[in-house]
Amino acid sequence: MSKPHLHTVLSPRLLDIYDCSNSIVVIIDVFRATSTIATALYNGAARVIPVDTVDKCIAIGKATSGITAGERDGKVIEGLAYGNSPAEYPRSFIEGKTLVLTTTNGTKLLHMALQAGAAEVITGSFPNLSAVCNYLIAQGKPVVLGCSGWKDKFNLEDTMFAGAVISRVKKHFTIHCDSSLMAEEMYTKHKNDRLAFITQLTHWHRLEKFGLEKDLQYCVTEDIANVLPLFKNGDLIAG
Amino acid sequence: MSKPHLHTVLSPRLLDIYDCSNSIVVIIDVFRATSTIATALYNGAARVIPVDTVDKCIAIGKATSGITAGERDGKVIEGLAYGNSPAEYPRSFIEGKTLVLTTTNGTKLLHMALQAGAAEVITGSFPNLSAVCNYLIAQGKPVVLGCSGWKDKFNLEDTMFAGAVISRVKKHFTIHCDSSLMAEEMYTKHKNDRLAFITQLTHWHRLEKFGLEKDLQYCVTEDIANVLPLFKNGDLIAG
Repeated sequence: MSKPHLHTVLSPRLLDIYDCSNSIVVIIDVFRATSTIATALYNGAARVIPVDTVDKCIAIGKATSGITAGERDGKVIEGLAYGNSPAEYPRSFIEGKTLVLTTTNGTKLLHMALQAGAAEVITGSFPNLSAVCNYLIAQGKPVVLGCSGWKDKFNLEDTMFAGAVISRVKKHFTIHCDSSLMAEEMYTKHKNDRLAFITQLTHWHRLEKFGLEKDLQYCVTEDIANVLPLFKNGDLIAG
Repeated sequence: MSKPHLHTVLSPRLLDIYDCSNSIVVIIDVFRATSTIATALYNGAARVIPVDTVDKCIAIGKATSGITAGERDGKVIEGLAYGNSPAEYPRSFIEGKTLVLTTTNGTKLLHMALQAGAAEVITGSFPNLSAVCNYLIAQGKPVVLGCSGWKDKFNLEDTMFAGAVISRVKKHFTIHCDSSLMAEEMYTKHKNDRLAFITQLTHWHRLEKFGLEKDLQYCVTEDIANVLPLFKNGDLIAG
């Protein structure tokens, strides 16, 4: 039997070039949305509701008695209670609660994947790398690794996470895709110097002025919040 | 004085995210359009007219007494005289003539760059790497390295050419762009094993069944047709 295909999509703008039907789409937004989602669910959040606008975040937060959260350019958005840092969601705070999270890049891609007919949507980040890989291997369906990028631009942190997944799952999939080949090579090259390498990335320069170095280092640490966020009926829940 | 910016665009779909005004846009379509353009001009073609449809190619070929050329999927298009292989355009054949060339990916990006307000458009490929780099350094304007890709998908051969340019010109430009960082790293990693590495790329698999291995090897050889193709009033001419 032939193995299912795996493709890597380097920007939301490129998603519709790929066939997402019957596929599992992995939403990747390493700095920091999908790392925060994994952390909140790992620490016992009942669910995370990803929304694309601040107004929706406030309205759904009120309707669900949820915690509203979101950032633009490293700052908490006015009208919301919390930010987009994994460090804000320890078990003592988040357990049993609903987190309503608005992010730009990751949430947009998630909704695009649903519109493109994805069979399933999950989220991936280094903190939950193994959970993602184990799920993809167990399901045996076609996979699209969707990098959220930054305002539709390519970024290396999302690409390297795609590469980390590929390096672990590749023998279970058919992979004929230059994006995937590049992603795996960039991950392999920098997996052991990643803390130094991420200081060269554009997103680092954008966020370091807000004192977020520790956050970014957390976001490239593997398996410290090893849970599988599954999107079901509008919610991300621990699978 | 601050140095001009340089960005790398990994797919035509991403071009409009970048500011092309006042910039030199380098159109890159390594397999094989821009390698063929460099070769024809290097071998004395009076001009190359890039067109986006077969009908235009035939009409302009008739009006200019030019040589009509173009391929789809490695085969000469019905109604046109020649293909998209650099080997078809030695000096003994092309000198003094007009070549009307229709390609999908490269020509599309060229017209998009003009619409985006590019100050100048040139074409780049490994056979004319030095000419491109010398021109970019001499002009001192902002640069956009535009990878044509394949049907809007990312490809590694165009990306690696962008990386080759960056490795030579970077000290003259301000480069804060993950695409450029990745492109240079992929080029540096594979510049010495490129003949082996290109056999792993999707485009190789697409074209090798047409027996085009020699063409593809030619297309990753540096400076064997070292001319600068400049786009002026609808024509590409040797600068």
